[in-house]
Amino acid sequence: MKRVEFFDTKITDGFWKQKQDLIRNVTVKAVYDRFYDTGRIDAFKCDKNSEIKPHFFWDSDVAKWIEGVAYLTREKREIWLEEIVDNIVDEIEKNQDPCGYFNIFFTSVEPQNRFKNRDCHELYCLGHLIEAGVAYYEATGKSKLLNLMCKYVDYVEKVFVREKSVGFTTPGHEEIELALVRLYECTKKEKYLELSKFFVDERGKRAEETIDWGEFSYNQSHKPVREQETAEGHAVRAVYLYCAMADLALKYKDDALKNACEKIFDNIINKRMYITGGIGSSHMGEAFTVDYDLSNLFAYTESCAALGLILFANRMLLLDNDSKYSDTVERALYNGFLSSTSLDGRSFFYTNPLEILPQLYTRDVSVLEKNYLKLPVTQRQEVFGCSCCPPNIVRFIPSIGNLLYTYDEDTIYVHQFMQSVAKIKIGDDVYEIEQKTSYPYDGKIDITVKGGSIKLAVRVPYWHSGNLENVTKGYAYSDINENSNTVHLDYDMTPRFVYANPNVISDSCKCAVISGPIVYCMEGHDNKGHLRNIVLDTNGKISKGFDEKLGVPTLKIDAITRAECDMLYSFSQGKYENTTAHLIPYFAFANRGESEMQVWHSYKI
Amino acid sequence: MKRVEFFDTKITDGFWKQKQDLIRNVTVKAVYDRFYDTGRIDAFKCDKNSEIKPHFFWDSDVAKWIEGVAYLTREKREIWLEEIVDNIVDEIEKNQDPCGYFNIFFTSVEPQNRFKNRDCHELYCLGHLIEAGVAYYEATGKSKLLNLMCKYVDYVEKVFVREKSVGFTTPGHEEIELALVRLYECTKKEKYLELSKFFVDERGKRAEETIDWGEFSYNQSHKPVREQETAEGHAVRAVYLYCAMADLALKYKDDALKNACEKIFDNIINKRMYITGGIGSSHMGEAFTVDYDLSNLFAYTESCAALGLILFANRMLLLDNDSKYSDTVERALYNGFLSSTSLDGRSFFYTNPLEILPQLYTRDVSVLEKNYLKLPVTQRQEVFGCSCCPPNIVRFIPSIGNLLYTYDEDTIYVHQFMQSVAKIKIGDDVYEIEQKTSYPYDGKIDITVKGGSIKLAVRVPYWHSGNLENVTKGYAYSDINENSNTVHLDYDMTPRFVYANPNVISDSCKCAVISGPIVYCMEGHDNKGHLRNIVLDTNGKISKGFDEKLGVPTLKIDAITRAECDMLYSFSQGKYENTTAHLIPYFAFANRGESEMQVWHSYKI
Repeated sequence: MKRVEFFDTKITDGFWKQKQDLIRNVTVKAVYDRFYDTGRIDAFKCDKNSEIKPHFFWDSDVAKWIEGVAYLTREKREIWLEEIVDNIVDEIEKNQDPCGYFNIFFTSVEPQNRFKNRDCHELYCLGHLIEAGVAYYEATGKSKLLNLMCKYVDYVEKVFVREKSVGFTTPGHEEIELALVRLYECTKKEKYLELSKFFVDERGKRAEETIDWGEFSYNQSHKPVREQETAEGHAVRAVYLYCAMADLALKYKDDALKNACEKIFDNIINKRMYITGGIGSSHMGEAFTVDYDLSNLFAYTESCAALGLILFANRMLLLDNDSKYSDTVERALYNGFLSSTSLDGRSFFYTNPLEILPQLYTRDVSVLEKNYLKLPVTQRQEVFGCSCCPPNIVRFIPSIGNLLYTYDEDTIYVHQFMQSVAKIKIGDDVYEIEQKTSYPYDGKIDITVKGGSIKLAVRVPYWHSGNLENVTKGYAYSDINENSNTVHLDYDMTPRFVYANPNVISDSCKCAVISGPIVYCMEGHDNKGHLRNIVLDTNGKISKGFDEKLGVPTLKIDAITRAECDMLYSFSQGKYENTTAHLIPYFAFANRGESEMQVWHSYKI
Repeated sequence: MKRVEFFDTKITDGFWKQKQDLIRNVTVKAVYDRFYDTGRIDAFKCDKNSEIKPHFFWDSDVAKWIEGVAYLTREKREIWLEEIVDNIVDEIEKNQDPCGYFNIFFTSVEPQNRFKNRDCHELYCLGHLIEAGVAYYEATGKSKLLNLMCKYVDYVEKVFVREKSVGFTTPGHEEIELALVRLYECTKKEKYLELSKFFVDERGKRAEETIDWGEFSYNQSHKPVREQETAEGHAVRAVYLYCAMADLALKYKDDALKNACEKIFDNIINKRMYITGGIGSSHMGEAFTVDYDLSNLFAYTESCAALGLILFANRMLLLDNDSKYSDTVERALYNGFLSSTSLDGRSFFYTNPLEILPQLYTRDVSVLEKNYLKLPVTQRQEVFGCSCCPPNIVRFIPSIGNLLYTYDEDTIYVHQFMQSVAKIKIGDDVYEIEQKTSYPYDGKIDITVKGGSIKLAVRVPYWHSGNLENVTKGYAYSDINENSNTVHLDYDMTPRFVYANPNVISDSCKCAVISGPIVYCMEGHDNKGHLRNIVLDTNGKISKGFDEKLGVPTLKIDAITRAECDMLYSFSQGKYENTTAHLIPYFAFANRGESEMQVWHSYKI
């Protein structure tokens, strides 16, 4: 099974075209400006006398932004962006150690401490610089960054594999493993694939490879990766590792790796994933915790983790065409990932809670440290100290076409639905495939394939309630030929109530509401009183609407709510009044100032 | 209005006799043993070379224990306890500075830092030593400790009032204010009352009187006390201050103080008190927070704060005979205070949460610092670092008769119900009053008054659903004379469902259950599955039972609960199965090992 790369697809209109335009017209510059303001750009000059002390992960922030620039460039050149990138690359060239080593922090501030501390993100940064180098070369033909990074990787191979002369064996924060697979695919040099396999194989084999403040599982080093069956530790590190494991399982036909990926994936989606596709419940270690521990209020659910889950799930489709993977891509894409970015494309969430109670932020009024409970911030910010998420969004959305199709000798698999065209070369045949749809707001999708006879396998979303013919593992198979080259789909986007497993105590006696792939939420802006007092009538009336200001669809649902009263405690329930609950897509919350918000609602039992 | 002191009452049988026996036979020694083990007793030797460094609040822990010994002694001498106390008093005498100053920590470790840091509890410790001295003198006639403390107080008066030669003006932790009133009552020396008034009057007048890490309100110094209208800051400090304010309002007929007390009290019971009578919602500053912020899971609700609320409310009855005060005494007494102690009298809660979810304690498995969220401990402990609560229990329960009666010229007011006898001298008349009752498990109370004609005012508890005649401010008035000297009461203890104000978002769509004064809870031990999934049928059957092992009454309530299922998220609510919810008194929770527990339950809406 192979992937149709984003540059062979083109999002032509609709939901994702609007998002891609926003990245190009707003976000890429907004993120650059914040990076410039915070010193991240100038930091590449490695000026030892700079007043701003760089952080050892700053390289990666900018690298991801460069990767995003590359993807934008691939569709349409933006000279001003290329100039910025070229200048940064020149600085890297200027400051790269003759041996190949480069890291803003360790080059300019602590050269004596290179590769001594496993948790200092040097290989993580290199991973992102590799991805940037590959992407920028493939987009522009400019190979300088790629070559600089190849030199660096060769040095890494020397000191980590051959000499074993460094302070640790495998990176504290995974990323280089999947980047090395990309480097291999770009350069076709086996040694890069082997280095990736080395890092993956060695992980979890050494008791000494912990970090100061955490346990082994924090960075997935608690056991060899092929023996891991549950998603553990720092969620972003975890899914980046799982991506590499899936890549290597495919490249090496490694069934043990594939098997581990499948078990871990199932553990995530059956026990440890929010309805939004968010993962990593706890701010402690930004980590997975235990099965069914999915607090809404304290949800950590980092944007990068949702994105990483998309990348992992999308890779699993190359190992097994099962809609549990593409459904998960969709779930995270339209909810836990998309919520990361404001509708205007300028500000971002690092964490994406499923409930916000602004009054809790004022509860510890008597003491100074108000953020002690680590409640997530209630409003998106333009930049943050650890600003990994914004550039991740910049690189992901322009390359979102990567999610659409895979193929093998005789079948094209359609995983996601976007108004788009694509070219797919299978053997000597070239197919043109077009999707016409208003997805995700309408379930009608027309898929036309030109170029000859082939099988088409189209995902049937888990939320579609009708029956289709010829469905295997969540894909409806049909034959495309000259007489019949269009498949007409009409997935049912009637709003549905969702109930969590009884073991998810945070969702006990509560329901969520989805319409198609989109999880809805209530915001205080649209609803009177405390949201927790609103009790949905799951047998009542539901109507669809549209919020002109936000530009998103809405739902109105029959409900009851308790009237205000004076007593703190009383023997009467008080009056339950009829009301109408107003819901908006979860991804659109927090675009109108601070307010209560919740995804899980009480309902009449 | 005057109080009938505990030593003029005698609990003769039933619930509180059993508790008092437990203190005498078990708790007083258990607490002493732990204090001895931890070095608190030997610390009075003030050995500069001791390996164990004392804490600056240790004096107060032992002082409260001495006070408890005094109250036990008052009823029946325990020579071994007196010997311990006498030895401690000898050590205090030996180590007291010639000027009068004494504090274990500052005498032995940092003599140079006396009275420099407002938050170092020296005056708080002195307050408890005063109370111990008064109590021990009144119980045994031994005046040594009392005299030592009078000398210390005289020194305090000199350096704080006359010389103003110390580092602050009013104590960081209140307690000495109410103790000085007691000292005045014992010695009849006005200067002690005046010193109390000085500390109360000066509080909140100085901007510089904050502590390092908190805001002014932390120790009620945000404004002059007569201007305070809400309960703020550290809950124990707060209620100890309010006790002194109520005392001084009475002694000085100070209406401004009385008015502040009333406003603060109303703020507590109408906005900031748990159904258990627990106060102080947040572990941050062990403090009151904002109105309606009453998280069950993160409830701090220190045992000493519930006790302090009892002491405050009981004092308010001397200013205004309103059952809101005695109802609050009862609420805190049978619930938030009583939960502090294990049924075997050997271990204690510092905090008393209203919900326990043991699985949350394992959620941060990937990192070391598991207690970061400051979830309360789930099981009582024999001693803790800040062990203020256990000796508070030791001194309170033997003196619980203080809660029963007040009187004025022509009326005896009956506030609490316990199987007991009492003598009340009003003018030249001596009345004998006897209560026969199985309270709090049965609402039948027979009150017999001998000694002549008088009016009897008996509290009608807020939870009683019937109507009584001649009720004013929650008290039923009747005439006692030779022909009719017994009042027969039969308060309705039918279990009732309680609903919180809609602004208490932690209790949204939930109900609590009480029977008489007792709040009930569910424990995992008695109920299958997660408690949060159990939905009570408030129109269903409720039956009373008895748990032989725990020795407490129980309730069984019709309910439904969701059946187990595999899916993490599904479109079906799944099956709701009929079940029976088993409840026990809240005060009896956590006596059978760790388990889920909740006070607020979902109910069929």
